[in-house]
Amino acid sequence: MRIAILGYGNLGRGVELAVRQNPDAELAMVFTRRDPDSLKPATEGIPVYHVSSVKDHVKEFDVMIICGGSATDLPGQTPVYARLTHVIDSFDTHARIPEHFANVDKAARETGHVALISCGWDPGLFSLNRVYASSVLPEGKDYTFWGKGVSQGHSDAIRRIPGVKDAKQYTIPVPDALDAVRAGKNPELTVRQKHTRECFVVAEEGADKAEIERTIRTMPNYFSDYDTTVHFISEEEMKASHSGMPHGGFVIRTGSTADGTHNHVIEYSLKLDSNPEFTASVLVAYARALVRMAGEGTTGCKTVLDVPPAYLSPLSAEELRAHYL
Amino acid sequence: MRIAILGYGNLGRGVELAVRQNPDAELAMVFTRRDPDSLKPATEGIPVYHVSSVKDHVKEFDVMIICGGSATDLPGQTPVYARLTHVIDSFDTHARIPEHFANVDKAARETGHVALISCGWDPGLFSLNRVYASSVLPEGKDYTFWGKGVSQGHSDAIRRIPGVKDAKQYTIPVPDALDAVRAGKNPELTVRQKHTRECFVVAEEGADKAEIERTIRTMPNYFSDYDTTVHFISEEEMKASHSGMPHGGFVIRTGSTADGTHNHVIEYSLKLDSNPEFTASVLVAYARALVRMAGEGTTGCKTVLDVPPAYLSPLSAEELRAHYL
Repeated sequence: MRIAILGYGNLGRGVELAVRQNPDAELAMVFTRRDPDSLKPATEGIPVYHVSSVKDHVKEFDVMIICGGSATDLPGQTPVYARLTHVIDSFDTHARIPEHFANVDKAARETGHVALISCGWDPGLFSLNRVYASSVLPEGKDYTFWGKGVSQGHSDAIRRIPGVKDAKQYTIPVPDALDAVRAGKNPELTVRQKHTRECFVVAEEGADKAEIERTIRTMPNYFSDYDTTVHFISEEEMKASHSGMPHGGFVIRTGSTADGTHNHVIEYSLKLDSNPEFTASVLVAYARALVRMAGEGTTGCKTVLDVPPAYLSPLSAEELRAHYL
Repeated sequence: MRIAILGYGNLGRGVELAVRQNPDAELAMVFTRRDPDSLKPATEGIPVYHVSSVKDHVKEFDVMIICGGSATDLPGQTPVYARLTHVIDSFDTHARIPEHFANVDKAARETGHVALISCGWDPGLFSLNRVYASSVLPEGKDYTFWGKGVSQGHSDAIRRIPGVKDAKQYTIPVPDALDAVRAGKNPELTVRQKHTRECFVVAEEGADKAEIERTIRTMPNYFSDYDTTVHFISEEEMKASHSGMPHGGFVIRTGSTADGTHNHVIEYSLKLDSNPEFTASVLVAYARALVRMAGEGTTGCKTVLDVPPAYLSPLSAEELRAHYL
């Protein structure tokens, strides 16, 4: 399968790396909103085109992975490009998924394309596990915990505070809450009881650190509902110890059978050194599925919940039954 | 959906319990190889018929869950009943899946039915996780551990030893092996390094316990390749402490991206108080999927790898996108 990348940031570069791990995939081209001459992909010889020329190149690739941000890029981009080709994105604003789905579905249906939105690990692999587990254990309760990992949104929010030069925020699940869930205690957990937030901040010289810390801790939506720790560190330490983008989390469902006589725990967890590279790996596996669905004449917008698991694998159905089932 | 159960043992009774947890499902009837008058289902008013009369009742249910054993029942039963109706089984002899698939596929295709084989947790939910994880992290290694849980086959093997009145065998994953896998060390593990076996045995009066223990420990295939512990206990203790059928296990894949720079761990685990009741719960969720696939005109044999996750849920696609994605 020939893959086109639209947007060459952390996620786009991750897709480029993931393509190399899949012998049946090749990177066909990269599209950018910047000046194409200013961008040099890591892979030798990959053409770079301006996004305005997508329509001129649609015959040269099988699927386009749109690597924009969910806040402002994808709501506009995915419906537009779904009119030109088969597309996949990692739209992760949960509350706006129905609206994004409707827009992409309309565009893809009207033009005979197939699109897959909200593909990654949450939404994505975590969603799969929520659906499988709740279907199998109807009498139960599920919990999603995130972390330990870097929240880009929270880090950005800190960086916007006057006097802050750089910042990194880690979301951390509360161990006692995880234990209570695993023990089948079905706790009702507030946001504060589920996660803590740890912030590493590089302050500008002469900045009022006490004021920065107060601003962080009291920031509505982002921090005020959480137990938040703030550490001021040097620029060197930020670079040495906090330059990665680790993440992960847990989806746990506990439930019972036989009128509550027998309890069961289903747990799925991810521990990721690189959030964008792992998300990119999920996108490339689903790009394979999308190409298969397109080949079957499927049109419209889909999500990971609509895709048969076998479609993600390069192996044949026979091989999967013999060795993976 | 109206569900028929064929075979009313531990698994069949588990399906009956699982059906009660699913408001869109009802138990239509039970088929048995025994004298139907000798069997009284736990649910009031459920008709019991002899297996020879399945063909007379196929219009009275939507899907049949065949609850036989993999060793001798299912290889014969599933192809036979796939000629009469839509069927689902939990065939779990991994090495014989391709052969069983071919037989069931032929029967179902020739008669326009859809069948699903090898549905439970392994094969089943564990298979899904092996396929998802290996597709997402092509450069990696996966491991399946079972337990702590009761192995019916190993317990039966002990019970066949002269002088043994009753026996229960627990398969236990080795904690150090689990830790090494989670740490991404990609260990090469022998069977002995992955699992230990713990046996609880009630000996007949006057039996030679040393000889029983020796026979267990040296039994080829079952025990000789494992570190095995044997405990002799009283009949009362067996009943009090070992009457359950707990099981579970772990599917872990570790892999890397960016030429080995970043490591990732995907872990799925189950901790089940009742193996047959949980397996039955999986079967009922997939029965829902099977009815949907039959409604779309799908025919032939399928496995969990072919089923879109959304088909397992009683919720609509819209509800799933809004609340589970």
